[in-house]
Amino acid sequence: MPDASVDAAEAAGRPRIAIEAVTPSVDAGRFPVKTIIGRAVTVEADIFADGHEVLRAEILWRGPDDADWRREPMAELVNDRWRGAFTPTGIGPHSYAIEAWRDDFGTFRRDLTKKREAGIDVALETDEGLQLLEDHASAAPAELARPVADVVLRTRPSDVSARVTALLDHATAAAAKAADPRAHATRSAPLPLEVERIRAEFASWYELFPRSESGDPARHGAFRDVIRRLPMIRDMGFDVLYFPPIHPIGKTNRKGPNNTLTPGPQDTGSPYAIGSEEGGHDAIHPELGTLEDFQALVRAAKEHGLEIALDFAIQCSPDHPWLKEQPGWFKWRPDGSMKYAENPPKKYQDIVNVDFYGPDAVPGLWEALRDVVLFWAENGVKTFRVDNPHTKPFPFWEWMIAEVKRKHPDAIFLSEAFTRPKVMYRLAKIGYSQSYTYFTWRNHKHELAAYLTELTTTAPKDFFRPHFFVNTPDINPFFLQTSGRPGFLIRAALATTLSGLWGMYNGFEVCESAPLPGKEEYLDSEKYQIRIRNWNQPGNIIQEITRLNRIRRENPALQSHLGVEFFNCFDDQILYYGKPRPSADGAEIQDMILVFVTLDPNYERTAPYELPLWRFDLPDDGTVAVEDLMRGNSFTLTGKNQTIYLNPNELPFHVWRLTKQGAAI
Amino acid sequence: MPDASVDAAEAAGRPRIAIEAVTPSVDAGRFPVKTIIGRAVTVEADIFADGHEVLRAEILWRGPDDADWRREPMAELVNDRWRGAFTPTGIGPHSYAIEAWRDDFGTFRRDLTKKREAGIDVALETDEGLQLLEDHASAAPAELARPVADVVLRTRPSDVSARVTALLDHATAAAAKAADPRAHATRSAPLPLEVERIRAEFASWYELFPRSESGDPARHGAFRDVIRRLPMIRDMGFDVLYFPPIHPIGKTNRKGPNNTLTPGPQDTGSPYAIGSEEGGHDAIHPELGTLEDFQALVRAAKEHGLEIALDFAIQCSPDHPWLKEQPGWFKWRPDGSMKYAENPPKKYQDIVNVDFYGPDAVPGLWEALRDVVLFWAENGVKTFRVDNPHTKPFPFWEWMIAEVKRKHPDAIFLSEAFTRPKVMYRLAKIGYSQSYTYFTWRNHKHELAAYLTELTTTAPKDFFRPHFFVNTPDINPFFLQTSGRPGFLIRAALATTLSGLWGMYNGFEVCESAPLPGKEEYLDSEKYQIRIRNWNQPGNIIQEITRLNRIRRENPALQSHLGVEFFNCFDDQILYYGKPRPSADGAEIQDMILVFVTLDPNYERTAPYELPLWRFDLPDDGTVAVEDLMRGNSFTLTGKNQTIYLNPNELPFHVWRLTKQGAAI
Repeated sequence: MPDASVDAAEAAGRPRIAIEAVTPSVDAGRFPVKTIIGRAVTVEADIFADGHEVLRAEILWRGPDDADWRREPMAELVNDRWRGAFTPTGIGPHSYAIEAWRDDFGTFRRDLTKKREAGIDVALETDEGLQLLEDHASAAPAELARPVADVVLRTRPSDVSARVTALLDHATAAAAKAADPRAHATRSAPLPLEVERIRAEFASWYELFPRSESGDPARHGAFRDVIRRLPMIRDMGFDVLYFPPIHPIGKTNRKGPNNTLTPGPQDTGSPYAIGSEEGGHDAIHPELGTLEDFQALVRAAKEHGLEIALDFAIQCSPDHPWLKEQPGWFKWRPDGSMKYAENPPKKYQDIVNVDFYGPDAVPGLWEALRDVVLFWAENGVKTFRVDNPHTKPFPFWEWMIAEVKRKHPDAIFLSEAFTRPKVMYRLAKIGYSQSYTYFTWRNHKHELAAYLTELTTTAPKDFFRPHFFVNTPDINPFFLQTSGRPGFLIRAALATTLSGLWGMYNGFEVCESAPLPGKEEYLDSEKYQIRIRNWNQPGNIIQEITRLNRIRRENPALQSHLGVEFFNCFDDQILYYGKPRPSADGAEIQDMILVFVTLDPNYERTAPYELPLWRFDLPDDGTVAVEDLMRGNSFTLTGKNQTIYLNPNELPFHVWRLTKQGAAI
Repeated sequence: MPDASVDAAEAAGRPRIAIEAVTPSVDAGRFPVKTIIGRAVTVEADIFADGHEVLRAEILWRGPDDADWRREPMAELVNDRWRGAFTPTGIGPHSYAIEAWRDDFGTFRRDLTKKREAGIDVALETDEGLQLLEDHASAAPAELARPVADVVLRTRPSDVSARVTALLDHATAAAAKAADPRAHATRSAPLPLEVERIRAEFASWYELFPRSESGDPARHGAFRDVIRRLPMIRDMGFDVLYFPPIHPIGKTNRKGPNNTLTPGPQDTGSPYAIGSEEGGHDAIHPELGTLEDFQALVRAAKEHGLEIALDFAIQCSPDHPWLKEQPGWFKWRPDGSMKYAENPPKKYQDIVNVDFYGPDAVPGLWEALRDVVLFWAENGVKTFRVDNPHTKPFPFWEWMIAEVKRKHPDAIFLSEAFTRPKVMYRLAKIGYSQSYTYFTWRNHKHELAAYLTELTTTAPKDFFRPHFFVNTPDINPFFLQTSGRPGFLIRAALATTLSGLWGMYNGFEVCESAPLPGKEEYLDSEKYQIRIRNWNQPGNIIQEITRLNRIRRENPALQSHLGVEFFNCFDDQILYYGKPRPSADGAEIQDMILVFVTLDPNYERTAPYELPLWRFDLPDDGTVAVEDLMRGNSFTLTGKNQTIYLNPNELPFHVWRLTKQGAAI
């Protein structure tokens, strides 16, 4: 199996310049890097060749509508590492590559300068320089060749000293650069980049069950009820409103309250038991309204600056029309029955799963599922929360998401995969814009810092966007079951300041926490019944949530999980971190959000901490201006060593904006 | 530029199982991983799929003579990481890949076991199991299908309990495994692996100038003189004998002693000024002997267990026949002259460089250079030290080395590139088996530990083999110029115990160090004149070198740079490290070489240190047996905290072999 012989001519045609270790890149270009519109993408690479000649490099990049590459220069840092940046101005699939070449005239100028300074006779060198310029001119298009040829014509008759002056002239350098034939030009393999709209990385989600929105426990809520709630949700500062499935609910094995198997005739069942004789994934549960009602809701939400997110849950109730119409999309048991879904120890007797590789599943089922998403996208829904994607094949998601984004580049998919880390990361690689995370179960200082450090400084930073939900209809976190109101404020502060994406399921704002005893689930779960709440009840945290969402909107540093830095606060219960305002790479920091959160909902705490003056290039006795964004007051702090006080019964966190003294805010 | 639409059927044919982060691999398979014959290659990967089915995986690998893949099993570690290993038994280009598949019968057995244990009725499950076995049988070759079909025939008539017993039987599992149709089998892209002979990683080099071997300053040495030296070199424990260029030396601009430009008529010139009217790179300098003499030397060396390494230096003396015969292989100046070589501030007035992209250079020059190497390889030389490869194009080396290795898979190339790290690493990636390093200039504890840690634990560990030369004809290290004999012992101990590859240029064993004043060069450098030495002069370190080389041969731990671990010795001048005997991955350590080297040649030192009992799974008060390999005595040590004493005037280092008490040595 030795490689076949290669002839020398072919070998000599291979790249002379090495371009290695290009960043960012995901699995060597197998998957796209992710970014959002308007953010600079910083590209680095090791670029070098044999010998000591001057090299140049630039980034080539293009978006979906570009006929040709755009170009940005790269500069050498140190140790053969180069850097440049470009800023996408549209969404969709982009790509980028690096082109490097040998700058022969630049090399000549460098060497001529050295020799002149060393007092060496350079008569012959000036001949060589003029010859090089002639070569440039002869290879370049006329308009670029002319200025170079002019230099040659003007300079050749001169004496050596005048020739040197002309050859080292900046205008000559500029003309030569423009006409550079780019000796040994080498291009790296293009890498894919997915540019998404801002809400892929910065959004505040509010989740509710439309059927609970009537305000009357005896009446099934409808889309028109939700329209009445929109101003309140928007006033709290949310911008995505997300519903569990809105489709007809099956009757076979319907669940009763608290996941019981003996529902009464009035019980609504779980909306995740999708499909009945009234239709499947592209139908609407009749009690919620009509498709026209839904469209009206989408429009009304948009007017309020909100967008609707739907749930894409592939499972079917045993009554779903597909079971009869497309038996080859399911896996049947030898006795003609079908297994219900399980996620041990959870049992879902009211749903069955499709078989993606069943006898008639390819292409029928795959296309039908894609068409469901396209149907809702064409009805104005561009954001989909996907239920349990980790139990469906990766190739399906990669294909389906690409197909949807071809028609709807603004589509956003959120992966609800609470599973092993590599599976969660793979789902992000194959197309999910966002993912649920372990945040909901991270309560200790070291584990929060470690998790955020992994997400923001290792490989996932380039493709995985964490969505920090403080609760979900499925998850009533143990911490909140006993923490009281301070615990809700703690979790809200963490979610809103650690990630650009956060979400809450309604009830959180009124500190709802009654559990199914011993379980991390809600008592009288809204999954199985209608729940009516009093939003104005005492102790609600609507004001604090509103303030946090406003701080997020006003401070770009909080619009991404990226950029977080953990600092020293000498108390194991106080998580303390900063996020500098995003700026050009390497630019001096002008302001920074600084957050202290006590993780202890019970006791006041006082602790020494280090004010990160060094991040502002200030000495240890420097001064910064501080604006307390929750309370609205301002003050200054001088010196690195400080003390913080937190009272969970008042407010278990601080959010400050630090500004370098004298700098513009 | 959005991707073209893909149809669902094509998407469904894509791999369902993810195989990610395969290690080892160099630049995602662009370059081969390197190893040596007989060493186990441990392969790891992240392997996972959607859902919770049982997966299996194996390594596929093949050498140059294998018609098909060989296979080794992989086992799951934790967190979806899998590991396996294979051991190449021949040299040459190999490749390896990973195949993973869904084990449907294994999944069935797992689930059946769980359900039976939970007391669930599994009658229907046994039907499903038998059906699965039938599917296995129908897809398998007859001899594998029969045992499976037999189980089905035998079991179908039984009651449920007997069916369960049969389905969970180990024999059934084995039959099913052999006939497994490997659902969703996925194969990773093959990765290249270069397997080399042991001397690519473990060898002790001795460098001399044959012309200095006459024993008489008035007589030019010859190959037959070298034959007389062979027993002495072999007795010291060396196994590679390396000569600077042996070709005719040019007369134009010949250098005189100490690099002067005014040689006398008797001056020999530098052997790096290759080529005269007597011939070029494939000729022998007449005073050294004939080609037959050279062949006799190669044979004699082989009889002594030594192999000859030659220098491949591409530059030409202005008298090289190529300048007249092939002017298109060189770069001429506008006045018809040629630039001599420079490596600022060094000037090489006696040589000129070829132009690899000159008008006639491709393919003529490239093939001529390859043919030079092939010529010497056909005359029994399989190891080439290449002069300054970093000033010649990477594509040339990648092509040339591959071409030579196709005919001579046992060829070894050593890169003499003292340049920027990424360039040195690239040369290793494109084919060099070994490389000179910065070792020669690393004298401090922290920098030695940091450099070795980079070489043995980061990316270069898979492709870069460091060759630790203590001196060269070009480098008379500042440290040795003032250290006296203890310094020579220090550098010899470091080189012989830190790397599998070490080398010395003669004179080192007699502690030669007189410098050209203020420079890191030798006075009266042998590069420009004949030097006769007295090998028996007092203070020589021949005995110590001999002992160190013997310890290397007897201890596999010292036959590679890999595996070094730095331990705590609380003295900034004592470098302290261990190398466990190589063993199967994860096996308990039975013995370890432990080395203490004081870096201070002047003063005695006493310092506390930590005995690495934890590496033997021993408690902090455990006991190990110690054999002092330099002195030959043995003792035991008990307890983690110990004290070491080093006297540079006696011996500035210790080399111990530690053995777990009670374990076989």
